[in-house]
Amino acid sequence: MHESAEPRSVVVAAALELFQAQGYDQTSVEQIARAAGVSRSTFFRQFGGKEDVVFADHEVLLTELRGFLAEGHDDPWAAVCEASERVYAHFAHDPEMARQRYQIVRQVPALREREIITVFRYERLFDEYLRSALPGIDPLDAVGFAALVTAVHNHVLRRLLRETKKVPVSTLQTALVDVRRRYGVGTDAVDSASDDVVVAVFPRSMPVAEITRRLGAELR
Amino acid sequence: MHESAEPRSVVVAAALELFQAQGYDQTSVEQIARAAGVSRSTFFRQFGGKEDVVFADHEVLLTELRGFLAEGHDDPWAAVCEASERVYAHFAHDPEMARQRYQIVRQVPALREREIITVFRYERLFDEYLRSALPGIDPLDAVGFAALVTAVHNHVLRRLLRETKKVPVSTLQTALVDVRRRYGVGTDAVDSASDDVVVAVFPRSMPVAEITRRLGAELR
Repeated sequence: MHESAEPRSVVVAAALELFQAQGYDQTSVEQIARAAGVSRSTFFRQFGGKEDVVFADHEVLLTELRGFLAEGHDDPWAAVCEASERVYAHFAHDPEMARQRYQIVRQVPALREREIITVFRYERLFDEYLRSALPGIDPLDAVGFAALVTAVHNHVLRRLLRETKKVPVSTLQTALVDVRRRYGVGTDAVDSASDDVVVAVFPRSMPVAEITRRLGAELR
Repeated sequence: MHESAEPRSVVVAAALELFQAQGYDQTSVEQIARAAGVSRSTFFRQFGGKEDVVFADHEVLLTELRGFLAEGHDDPWAAVCEASERVYAHFAHDPEMARQRYQIVRQVPALREREIITVFRYERLFDEYLRSALPGIDPLDAVGFAALVTAVHNHVLRRLLRETKKVPVSTLQTALVDVRRRYGVGTDAVDSASDDVVVAVFPRSMPVAEITRRLGAELR
């Protein structure tokens, strides 16, 4: 095992425990270091400050995704979706810790803001990747696809963090298939948007609620 | 003319001039107040601090949009797009001041972060509006549409701010028509045929909640 890798996650776990037990603002770096069994200087070698402990996973994930995307992919749209799924899988792997972190972030305005900025870093990474992998792409398509994947990802992730039951990765995958379909970059040839039209015929006397129910059943 | 409204924009203009001439960090509230001909206490009655001067327009715009959306709209998807166009029109009306602000924001990391957070507030406003205007909407559709409109808006706005030539509002409008098409909520989706039978044709990508809304409007 790598000597300097393990303490970092130990520090994160200890910090989250303290934040949850006594509050983020009430917890000092000294207390975290003591609880994790590391020195104050080790803490500051590993993290810039208290805030960085909360977002440590995202730093690692962003670096990993940058590497993953740089590998080169036949289908850049699919690669962005896979990147999103990787982030999701990371948090879904240990939902309890993810939920603990989420509760802390929710309660501290500065952390909420930092989270919004972190989310934007994923969006920008996806945008920049699409533009480099697909020279000549309309920037609007890169920007839009990146924003849509990121927004969908976050919505599904937030469901995982808010609910006590499991939200499987397939929920995200289904949503991402839908995103690709909206951009006409799905996997099967049939789903070009213009072909995909539904014609519904029903008596005018049918209640709207019943039409809705039938259409809903039909479309799902 | 309203007595307290005018000084606010005067203070903003004076502040932006100073920020551009001598740098954001190098400019004090005292200098801004002096240049604008207001007292320090007037400044702090109008703005929370130096940062707020830079984002004053967004606060006004967000409040305006909240009012506009609350008016009630036949087509909520179109209303979100119109909201986006209103913001664009505001900045396109005085591109020089918008460009001055953009240059300042770009140079100061804290302002860049604040901008990302401000952008997110528009996105959340659109998301919440769609959910309230279209009960039963799949939250993923609200989240996605809001994110896509916001991302497209920002991209076109950034072109306006970076380029010296004009970027007409029609550039944004075209991009927003494209967004609506991706969500199957363009203007020409529902068609009624005879008195006794209704034939509805719509893209498969249209959210069921939107089909319901349109059918309901058509049938009543």
